[in-house]
Amino acid sequence: MLNIGLIGAGRIGQVHAQTISNHSGTRLAVISDVYQPAAETLAKKYHAEVARSEDIIADSAIDAVLIASSTDTHSELIEAATQAGKAVLCEKPVDLSLERARTCLANAAQTGQPVMIGFNRRFDPNFASIKQALTAGEIGKPELLSITSFDPAPPPVSYIKVSGGLFRDMMIHDFDMANFMMGEAPVFISASGSCVVDPEIGKAGDIDTAIVTLRYGDGKMAVIKNSRRAGYGYDQRLEVLGSDGLLQAQNMLENTVVKSTTDGVVSAKPTYFFLERYMPAYAREWHAFIEALESDSSMPVTLEDGVLALTMAEAAKQSLDTGMPVRLADV
Amino acid sequence: MLNIGLIGAGRIGQVHAQTISNHSGTRLAVISDVYQPAAETLAKKYHAEVARSEDIIADSAIDAVLIASSTDTHSELIEAATQAGKAVLCEKPVDLSLERARTCLANAAQTGQPVMIGFNRRFDPNFASIKQALTAGEIGKPELLSITSFDPAPPPVSYIKVSGGLFRDMMIHDFDMANFMMGEAPVFISASGSCVVDPEIGKAGDIDTAIVTLRYGDGKMAVIKNSRRAGYGYDQRLEVLGSDGLLQAQNMLENTVVKSTTDGVVSAKPTYFFLERYMPAYAREWHAFIEALESDSSMPVTLEDGVLALTMAEAAKQSLDTGMPVRLADV
Amino acid sequence: MLNIGLIGAGRIGQVHAQTISNHSGTRLAVISDVYQPAAETLAKKYHAEVARSEDIIADSAIDAVLIASSTDTHSELIEAATQAGKAVLCEKPVDLSLERARTCLANAAQTGQPVMIGFNRRFDPNFASIKQALTAGEIGKPELLSITSFDPAPPPVSYIKVSGGLFRDMMIHDFDMANFMMGEAPVFISASGSCVVDPEIGKAGDIDTAIVTLRYGDGKMAVIKNSRRAGYGYDQRLEVLGSDGLLQAQNMLENTVVKSTTDGVVSAKPTYFFLERYMPAYAREWHAFIEALESDSSMPVTLEDGVLALTMAEAAKQSLDTGMPVRLADV
Amino acid sequence: MLNIGLIGAGRIGQVHAQTISNHSGTRLAVISDVYQPAAETLAKKYHAEVARSEDIIADSAIDAVLIASSTDTHSELIEAATQAGKAVLCEKPVDLSLERARTCLANAAQTGQPVMIGFNRRFDPNFASIKQALTAGEIGKPELLSITSFDPAPPPVSYIKVSGGLFRDMMIHDFDMANFMMGEAPVFISASGSCVVDPEIGKAGDIDTAIVTLRYGDGKMAVIKNSRRAGYGYDQRLEVLGSDGLLQAQNMLENTVVKSTTDGVVSAKPTYFFLERYMPAYAREWHAFIEALESDSSMPVTLEDGVLALTMAEAAKQSLDTGMPVRLADV
Repeated sequence: MLNIGLIGAGRIGQVHAQTISNHSGTRLAVISDVYQPAAETLAKKYHAEVARSEDIIADSAIDAVLIASSTDTHSELIEAATQAGKAVLCEKPVDLSLERARTCLANAAQTGQPVMIGFNRRFDPNFASIKQALTAGEIGKPELLSITSFDPAPPPVSYIKVSGGLFRDMMIHDFDMANFMMGEAPVFISASGSCVVDPEIGKAGDIDTAIVTLRYGDGKMAVIKNSRRAGYGYDQRLEVLGSDGLLQAQNMLENTVVKSTTDGVVSAKPTYFFLERYMPAYAREWHAFIEALESDSSMPVTLEDGVLALTMAEAAKQSLDTGMPVRLADV
Repeated sequence: MLNIGLIGAGRIGQVHAQTISNHSGTRLAVISDVYQPAAETLAKKYHAEVARSEDIIADSAIDAVLIASSTDTHSELIEAATQAGKAVLCEKPVDLSLERARTCLANAAQTGQPVMIGFNRRFDPNFASIKQALTAGEIGKPELLSITSFDPAPPPVSYIKVSGGLFRDMMIHDFDMANFMMGEAPVFISASGSCVVDPEIGKAGDIDTAIVTLRYGDGKMAVIKNSRRAGYGYDQRLEVLGSDGLLQAQNMLENTVVKSTTDGVVSAKPTYFFLERYMPAYAREWHAFIEALESDSSMPVTLEDGVLALTMAEAAKQSLDTGMPVRLADV
Repeated sequence: MLNIGLIGAGRIGQVHAQTISNHSGTRLAVISDVYQPAAETLAKKYHAEVARSEDIIADSAIDAVLIASSTDTHSELIEAATQAGKAVLCEKPVDLSLERARTCLANAAQTGQPVMIGFNRRFDPNFASIKQALTAGEIGKPELLSITSFDPAPPPVSYIKVSGGLFRDMMIHDFDMANFMMGEAPVFISASGSCVVDPEIGKAGDIDTAIVTLRYGDGKMAVIKNSRRAGYGYDQRLEVLGSDGLLQAQNMLENTVVKSTTDGVVSAKPTYFFLERYMPAYAREWHAFIEALESDSSMPVTLEDGVLALTMAEAAKQSLDTGMPVRLADV
Repeated sequence: MLNIGLIGAGRIGQVHAQTISNHSGTRLAVISDVYQPAAETLAKKYHAEVARSEDIIADSAIDAVLIASSTDTHSELIEAATQAGKAVLCEKPVDLSLERARTCLANAAQTGQPVMIGFNRRFDPNFASIKQALTAGEIGKPELLSITSFDPAPPPVSYIKVSGGLFRDMMIHDFDMANFMMGEAPVFISASGSCVVDPEIGKAGDIDTAIVTLRYGDGKMAVIKNSRRAGYGYDQRLEVLGSDGLLQAQNMLENTVVKSTTDGVVSAKPTYFFLERYMPAYAREWHAFIEALESDSSMPVTLEDGVLALTMAEAAKQSLDTGMPVRLADV
């Protein structure tokens, strides 16, 4: 039984609390949050202790730390926790600053401690099944990957302003998904983006809609589409054309009911947002982290993966600003 | 090039006129209708002649006759045409009277002329594909057949009164479909029916909703559901559970467009009624008739098939009236 | 926080243990099983005590009892627990003997204690959504209900022999579902059944495939299809034709992935069996039970419902044996 | 009744011959082909005359000319036919040379004769239905258009060499589709492309896989994906994200049959290639042409549309060659 410290008791921290608690091999021992009442409420529910994050990291009884605090604390906490000999699962992104993330990677690497970045979508049963089919060669060699990733509604502009922008905040998941599916990083990245959903987002210096094209060394390509708004729900689809066929992951629907009337044939909408859609993925992510820890094998998503996705976000931003394709190696 | 005489220029006659005309091996030579202007209009469109049905049958230049006139004329016309040495394709049902249909079968059989009954659904690409898969053993031995057959809206009560009733008029198609799929006739037939769509149908002595169960000699079973009203369109589905799996034919939709909004995910409705749904089936039916004629092979749907379906309708009616299962051999 | 005693630590008891434990308002206090090591293993996982069932029932600290032991113990345990002042959630069926179930109902009713029967499918999100749409009148008045319920593979013949037969063991769920959807009991029941899956089932005196037709007082009808074997998985579908349209609940699939190759377009299979398909339903069932307890409102599935479904199973068996429709009031 | 001259009796000419012949208002009067036996065979089937193309154009009895000859003859024939006072429906593309196409447009415009370019996909019932929904504002303002257009198998390399390249030969349809859906031309075009299907295509100087991004004046965007090979069939899908929802056109399937076995759930493949998929579109295209002629209204697809799509192909090629986005106005 591994003792787990959870840093961050917000929305995503609460998801992880449940996942840690349900896992037969892990015990949610202690919780911290900058807003202590949040930590206390969550701790009460799961019979856990409350502590400051530095105390959690210093506590020799804690085997692993799950970092679900705000993005600006990730790098520092990863460094501190690994230096204290803890295994770490940290929410994405590693950092909004690529330079800082790279320093964090270097520092953490020196400790030799295992660090996993929480790209939860890799553990979605649908995407995982596609990856498995690709690896098994079921559609031959991948040639053309398409990722559709639309949020149901834009976040408040106040969030947009501190989010790091669409590429670092939202498409970073899709960059990692492309890396996961393709098994390698692209060579060139070309971004197009605009603000068509809400002019306030544009005024905040961000875009709300984007198309990014990735080109790989052997000629295969990928395209990622993002929008901050798809009124019908969370639209998370992916397809890969290979030399022998096509693999598609469709949306998860709220239920399987179909109603046919004179007005048409109506099905359920996609599950509304990431908590509904990816709850099974969070549980599977935690299982994968613990399994890697216990078998002493490499993490299924590494800190390097986190830095790579951030590098791609940076490249996309440069491409958007210059209107030119950007060579990833130049970022 | 075969010269074809068409008897009946109503709605279904018009469908056949087009099908005959489009076939590279058949020429629509002459058309008759009890209401002569209908025959004239249709003949003008296809550059055909107009004649009385008895003249068509007597005309030695005519190779085959397509009978699409009213049901009460079918038996007599089949007898006359076969006695005149014509090949015949006759619309279903053979007759409303089982006794008369049996006489017709005996008389036509004596002539040795080929007669096909127009159970067009056997030629629907979806149902034909299921039959092909069954024959190929793709789901092993059939065990449980389900046929769903709902009309979009009930016909006028005036039609109901002369229709012969739901079993002879509507479910007769499904009885033939069961025979087609199962490759044999059932031993027992049990019918439940009621009038829930329109009380006027009940006052006319008919039902508008029915469930009929068929039981075969080897224990396999079938169930047929009919309703005179499915507001969303023509609902024509079929599924067979076999020892190794399930085959299903879904509805044909008006188009493949899906609209997702906050109100839900909306697809197109099924094609509205039989002309929309079964137009390809009518063309394929005519091709099958001509192919059988030209290759001198047996008809894909025989007059015996027509009489068998009528016998099943009769059995279903007896079962409905008595509340007991009816042995088909006793009808 | 309610203290719960769980009687039965087998497969379904384990499901309930998790559900009780995850509910924020209930504590899994104590577990019993005739095979004590099973109780001990489960108790260890959930930090619960182990006791004999009679001790659980006698324990004044226990608020409610969940009965998941073998069917032959249900009636007695319901009686004992209600007489001891416990609220009860008992797995279906109430009993294999209709007479015994009726006695149990009478005895439990005298205590005034709340008893719920575990017809979990009512809490499946798909079926619950259909019920909600029906209640809201979204397709008008129901006219024709169809339930398809196929198991992936037959149970061992040893189980068949003690199961009470297909109607009591398997279709009982569908009888309750029909009652749930239609909101009333049928007047007549007609059953057809045969043994086409495995002759050993026939030798054991049971059938493995059945079609049962229900007829209601106002003319509406229902048909239930059961098979003990659908190689592709657990097939659980339902559709209702109403005066204004159709509602259908499709199968839940293992994932949303579609693979298109020269061999065809391949989707995932239905979730394999009831634990996979109905896990969300078990959690929702428990929530509904607790909510009814806490709000002191009537149980969402009553002991009367359990006896009614059993009566329908008895009627179906009589119909199968006699070949005649059976009036439910005569059973 | 309009008399039609058909120039070109190849594969696509044969499709048009049938369409012209089936239309109640048009008569296929005369056919030409550079390979006269092809014209003769087709003429025989439809009881038409055979002539040289110049004679057809000179024939005062001919009301309209359908040009389905090889691409290099299009411009000249459009000019000749319009100068002879004929209405023209010409297959795409107008010309492989943008300059020549522009001259043709200028020359044809001077005659005032109606010219329609055969972008048949606009008349596909699925795409037409999406256009109609967009026009009706059913998903608000369009923001992000995606077109997927994969051929089942690459053409022979000999064809590739004279095709004008993927953008002019294949994606030109998709450029026109984008114009049709968006109702305006894009400002910027960015192309990525590679040769991953067959190295012989690369040796012939062409690509076989491409992603092209279009950016419009108001910030909305489109992405077009092309591949010369999708083993499972002709993949023709389109979706538009708007401010209020999403519209998607899925593939047409060969039939609606679904087979479920232990191996999975298998559906039919998409209709194989353009003749199967777009046959209804060709008929509707011809109807639209005749309707515009008879009502003296503007053509539903103009020669300007043809030149615009060609200009976009040229821009895409420049973008591919330079790696930079190309401003359409600069081409």
